Amino acid sequence: MTDRKGFTLWFTGLSGSGKSTLAQFLTPILKDRGCNVEVLDGDEVRENLSKGLGFSKEDRDTNIRRIGYVARLLSRNGACAITAAISPYTSVRDEVRAMTEATFVEVYVEAPLEVVEERDTKGLYKKARAGEIKNFTGISDPYEAPENAEVTVHTGSETIEESAERIMSYLEANGLLAS
Amino acid sequence: MTDRKGFTLWFTGLSGSGKSTLAQFLTPILKDRGCNVEVLDGDEVRENLSKGLGFSKEDRDTNIRRIGYVARLLSRNGACAITAAISPYTSVRDEVRAMTEATFVEVYVEAPLEVVEERDTKGLYKKARAGEIKNFTGISDPYEAPENAEVTVHTGSETIEESAERIMSYLEANGLLAS
Repeated sequence: MTDRKGFTLWFTGLSGSGKSTLAQFLTPILKDRGCNVEVLDGDEVRENLSKGLGFSKEDRDTNIRRIGYVARLLSRNGACAITAAISPYTSVRDEVRAMTEATFVEVYVEAPLEVVEERDTKGLYKKARAGEIKNFTGISDPYEAPENAEVTVHTGSETIEESAERIMSYLEANGLLAS
Repeated sequence: MTDRKGFTLWFTGLSGSGKSTLAQFLTPILKDRGCNVEVLDGDEVRENLSKGLGFSKEDRDTNIRRIGYVARLLSRNGACAITAAISPYTSVRDEVRAMTEATFVEVYVEAPLEVVEERDTKGLYKKARAGEIKNFTGISDPYEAPENAEVTVHTGSETIEESAERIMSYLEANGLLAS
């Protein structure tokens, strides 16, 4: 029935690394290529699926599993699901990958901590350093960088166009976009 | 982008009224008509999206909103989402309807309490009558029947084929299936 190959672009990276920005940048590009794109943004998904959950490892894992469940449903119905949550733990990223039926593309949105802390787009690093936010990834909570991501982009040293191009090239090379 | 009209079939009805059975029966029929079908079953969704929530009105409403969020994402990407949760409260059903962008078809899966209690497929009514399960819809918790459902099927007095035909007729009459 599905006449279009669905897939999941699973972004992972520190807060402020540019996951949501890159997802928004990619959306119209992918739509132009005929994809039904759905961005599952960390904050929006927490609001809709995980209200009441905190930032302990257990609660973070539950939140990520829920995002994974929705990405699985979307991608197996032909949509392109882009997830943009920090998803700091390798084990649950792998779990979500394993349960996804459509193609799963892990994208490591890499930027050095110094860079994202300097950017501090939401002012969260300052608060985390001051101890006002606990369990903050990269400061008081671990971030386990992926070792075998399908694509890695370096938002600290390349333009957003370059990062997007890297992802599009991967999708093309792997037959995930109609030519 | 979407070359197929998505829609939500929102089933509502008492436990044991036949929501899941009807959803499973309809799935291959809709697939044969070119639909990408995704059934969001009450129990499965609770496991994946709402673990930890109970059966108070507040928790039920949260669960229903989550199902509504996922149905909205699926249907706006061209899929046919069939939800099969009791969804006993009118207000939250209307809320979910209002937030859905694709066509929303409320299907009242009607069966008299005597009938579903007699069937008692999961043995839950017996436990509810014995007080072993609290907040059980129809016994110790309200069920607000829809007053303006797009389709009503009567599983106590019609065959599953008749119920399915009623739903398919509605979808055809409203241009939701390719002819």
